[in-house]
Amino acid sequence: MKIEILCTGDEILTGKTVNTNYSHIARRLADTGLDVHWGTTVGDDRASLLQAFRQAGDRADAVIVNGGLGPTVDDLSQEVAAEACGVPLVLSDYWMERMTQSYARRGRVMPANNKKQAMLPANAEFIDNPIGTACGFAVTIGRARFLFTPGVPREMRRMLDEQVIPRLLALGGIRGVTKLKRFHTFGIGESRADEMLSGIEAFKQEGGIKLGFQAHYPQLETKLAVRGADEADLQRQLAPVEAEVRKRLGNFIIAEDEQTLEGVIMGKLREAGQTLSIVESFTGGNIAARLAPLVGAEAVFKRGVITREVSGETSPEDAAASAANLKAESGSSHALAVLMQLDEGADRPEFGATICIGIADDRGRVSRQARLIGGRDWVRVGAAELGLDCLRRHLLGLPVDERIDFERRDPPPSA
Amino acid sequence: MKIEILCTGDEILTGKTVNTNYSHIARRLADTGLDVHWGTTVGDDRASLLQAFRQAGDRADAVIVNGGLGPTVDDLSQEVAAEACGVPLVLSDYWMERMTQSYARRGRVMPANNKKQAMLPANAEFIDNPIGTACGFAVTIGRARFLFTPGVPREMRRMLDEQVIPRLLALGGIRGVTKLKRFHTFGIGESRADEMLSGIEAFKQEGGIKLGFQAHYPQLETKLAVRGADEADLQRQLAPVEAEVRKRLGNFIIAEDEQTLEGVIMGKLREAGQTLSIVESFTGGNIAARLAPLVGAEAVFKRGVITREVSGETSPEDAAASAANLKAESGSSHALAVLMQLDEGADRPEFGATICIGIADDRGRVSRQARLIGGRDWVRVGAAELGLDCLRRHLLGLPVDERIDFERRDPPPSA
Repeated sequence: MKIEILCTGDEILTGKTVNTNYSHIARRLADTGLDVHWGTTVGDDRASLLQAFRQAGDRADAVIVNGGLGPTVDDLSQEVAAEACGVPLVLSDYWMERMTQSYARRGRVMPANNKKQAMLPANAEFIDNPIGTACGFAVTIGRARFLFTPGVPREMRRMLDEQVIPRLLALGGIRGVTKLKRFHTFGIGESRADEMLSGIEAFKQEGGIKLGFQAHYPQLETKLAVRGADEADLQRQLAPVEAEVRKRLGNFIIAEDEQTLEGVIMGKLREAGQTLSIVESFTGGNIAARLAPLVGAEAVFKRGVITREVSGETSPEDAAASAANLKAESGSSHALAVLMQLDEGADRPEFGATICIGIADDRGRVSRQARLIGGRDWVRVGAAELGLDCLRRHLLGLPVDERIDFERRDPPPSA
Repeated sequence: MKIEILCTGDEILTGKTVNTNYSHIARRLADTGLDVHWGTTVGDDRASLLQAFRQAGDRADAVIVNGGLGPTVDDLSQEVAAEACGVPLVLSDYWMERMTQSYARRGRVMPANNKKQAMLPANAEFIDNPIGTACGFAVTIGRARFLFTPGVPREMRRMLDEQVIPRLLALGGIRGVTKLKRFHTFGIGESRADEMLSGIEAFKQEGGIKLGFQAHYPQLETKLAVRGADEADLQRQLAPVEAEVRKRLGNFIIAEDEQTLEGVIMGKLREAGQTLSIVESFTGGNIAARLAPLVGAEAVFKRGVITREVSGETSPEDAAASAANLKAESGSSHALAVLMQLDEGADRPEFGATICIGIADDRGRVSRQARLIGGRDWVRVGAAELGLDCLRRHLLGLPVDERIDFERRDPPPSA
């Protein structure tokens, strides 16, 4: 089955917005065993849209259209879809009612121009958008089924998983089931992970389990895409491979599937009835911001402190002492300190920092030091992850001082 | 002149790599007054490439092709270009010599498969790549001039500026210039902004100023795209419209063009030699994390506190008192408190919170209360923005209590 993605909108066409919707859609399709064959980007322009719909309708079996479903005059997807189908636009009373109610629930009156969002091609199949006012729909143009989704990422993502992908699988007559098993690691790069997993027999079999990686610094995602006749077949294929991957990637696995590093930490603390405080400097609230919003954090997260006062050099002992002080002050059972000493001078690819991490709990203190380089943002993001990973390792009884790939152990240039 | 960008490569097509080359090319063209009319993405697949070349050759005047010039078998751009032109590939002795010398200078022997990079369509115009082994070239397919660039970003970027854009400007016989003027607002939705700006005469003229919106909650971007004969003409067209937009959107404008809300606040504080501390609760460090990383924040940002202790109900007076306490404790000239009282129960679209904002400075205290709904994440993001916007308004002498679209003034369901 030939699937295309057609992205609309001047902000995407002009490069003002980087097209992450495209890459999200393409990756999600690949995860479920569907391949994207062609991508098109056009602006909020009637003639281009019509031509793009017609050409894609000639080439493809299915086309996911993203964007152009908003309430303003430059949102043209419904109008042009109707034109391509040779049908009029008709008002969906159902969607008008849904939008009106949605506004009413929030105590607001729906603006008049939102009516445009309920105008669908007369022949359209309705595709639900449970969290927005942009209504999805499907029509056939040429030989392809076109599925229309909104440009707002959270709406698109939900509709893609719940509405679009099931329709594509049905269209393609794809039976069997697929599963994507994911491992999230911190501290190993893609090539090293590839080496660590080399020679696993199951990856060599045609049509068996497909291994893939996706690096999004500072984490690496290792993906096992499996296709099977049914759930039992999936499990049978996956279980031994999963166990082998877990063994090989070992302590570097911070989370699996939908889990997150911060979620694992929060779960562990909550389970044990423990509480946490955090003091951080250059990470500027980013560590606390990973934990504080989590469900149940109210009972666990006691206090966060962001400090900019860096008094000369810092050491792992300083960090451990800061953690112990904060633990005492806040009354939390655990405290994490992530302090940093930044290189001098302007931002540059070699800009680095020495990161000192301290953890205090009822049994005492642990600490770790690491040097990261790669520019201010790179270092900030890496330091937040390293701090959280040390806490995870400590909570799980793993070594906190295992060397990571991003780390340099040579002294900073100023030393 | 109709210009297209055609990106090739499985990494881009499958979404594994986000296509930042596309957005870079499109933005650079826009900066020089050239508009991109269409974007295409295809994989390392002979049939797709040929079809893409032919269709773009029918639609466009010029096509920038990116990728597929490497030494490996999956790099197909030269071969398929030659096929589309109906000419053979011929070896460029000049490029072979350049590559050989480049390897020799680094004390290395050129691998045999690099020869492939010197094979160009017989009718090709050579386009220099001063920093890589992928040779650029141009051919005509259909009615369009195709300019081929490598996928390696730093090579593509240099060739784009030095080689490609000058050729495009010459092709289009283009004089004139364009500009994109942007306004960032907080507190008004896209439909209301559209209404607030309705009837501005300049938007109605064909080929004059084009109005567009881009919503990225909680902010809305209002864009004016202008084309003129020269810089003076641009200014003459834009000035009155810019002034009118500024008047109509008024206090809701938080920043313009490359400015950010946090940058405006930081600039204002720094300019006046003032300092800031922040106490926040449910936003969990997100407010501090917006300000603390900014260049120059070291001198302005004194202290951040993240607290989870919510002792029953909170009030604007509590928030103002918290800000005053933190101001006293930290010695900062200004303090911002953003405290919240969350609805009970699980996350849901109607989940809301009462947000209490307090600001303390040497002249006293101000405060504001607002109720936002829309789920935990939505409320958290909105509250952080509202807190920062109140601070901006206070620093600029604007009313801090102007009603925003996302706000409800009715009491929470539990009250």
